Amino acid sequence: MFTLAKPLARLIAELSRLPGIGPKTASRLTFYLLRAPKEQATALAQAIGELRQNIRECEICFNLSDENPCAICSDPQRDKSVICVVEEPLDVLAIERTGEYRGRYHVLHGAISPVDGIGPEDLKISELLRRLDKEKIEEIILATNPNLEGESTAMYLHRLLIPRGIRVTRIAHGLPVGGDLEYADQVTLIRALEGRREM
Amino acid sequence: MFTLAKPLARLIAELSRLPGIGPKTASRLTFYLLRAPKEQATALAQAIGELRQNIRECEICFNLSDENPCAICSDPQRDKSVICVVEEPLDVLAIERTGEYRGRYHVLHGAISPVDGIGPEDLKISELLRRLDKEKIEEIILATNPNLEGESTAMYLHRLLIPRGIRVTRIAHGLPVGGDLEYADQVTLIRALEGRREM
Repeated sequence: MFTLAKPLARLIAELSRLPGIGPKTASRLTFYLLRAPKEQATALAQAIGELRQNIRECEICFNLSDENPCAICSDPQRDKSVICVVEEPLDVLAIERTGEYRGRYHVLHGAISPVDGIGPEDLKISELLRRLDKEKIEEIILATNPNLEGESTAMYLHRLLIPRGIRVTRIAHGLPVGGDLEYADQVTLIRALEGRREM
Repeated sequence: MFTLAKPLARLIAELSRLPGIGPKTASRLTFYLLRAPKEQATALAQAIGELRQNIRECEICFNLSDENPCAICSDPQRDKSVICVVEEPLDVLAIERTGEYRGRYHVLHGAISPVDGIGPEDLKISELLRRLDKEKIEEIILATNPNLEGESTAMYLHRLLIPRGIRVTRIAHGLPVGGDLEYADQVTLIRALEGRREM
């Protein structure tokens, strides 16, 4: 039986282990790298190899950063009275991209999911409560994902935070901008109706 | 303005340069690698770094291999009288996956494309002709892609090979198995009708 050259097979196997990359994409990328300028492959290999060397969690918000505290937490321009709670560092990136949010963050590093055995104690929740003891927070925006785990986490946090007299808000659910009402799922449509506002 | 930690930004940038990988996929992969076991990231970086070290073109069929001649060309079990001409090494892989072809290959490393400035002299065509002088070939299967460039290349090769008295065949065009006639494009449907066979 025909076997692929070992260095090719090895890279295809390694790439296939990445999420969302199947064997076909992995082969395509492998042959691409084989033809690309040598510098490109070297730069990629180095970037992967050095990825963890300078990355740690910010001691305040637990976002990933090469500084501690991170650039956002140490920025005097940011509103220190608002914390936006997100599940993952990528969510911080998504919200920062909007350019609309001027407060700070708290990264939970996951969401409550009994099916996956992830409880509140596995997330940075006690760290969030400790922040509330130290910092003067007026509003907490719960920006966990609009799915089962994200909603459970938001509800859990809501129950925990309300007794502290802090304003707790949840990001809005509704139809995505540019979306099509006709194709919206029922739950989104119900939420969009519930969340309707005066024009 | 918020900037992402440098090692993260750098890997996202490098991954985004790969074909078919946009900034969002690149971020997702980067954060995945950050969380994956350190060994996985190291293995991937190494596989990329060592990709070219042992890969060369087979001197007979120009497929990429870590052996020369490649495993297929040096396999005494393969039928030496048939050559399947393909554009790229990935095409060899695709045909090998079927397990149905027992002949050998010839990899052109591209297809004739005047738009991209690729002429016959840029492909391994003279090398194919030299093979025909040396080897006893009875059939050449033209398995270039069923697109404009692949068809031009097949026609060019056909004209070149016919005077040599070798049987020259082209892989069949038609409806993909499991496909839907209703959604087939016109050209494919015309080819499928032209290529109809007795049942």
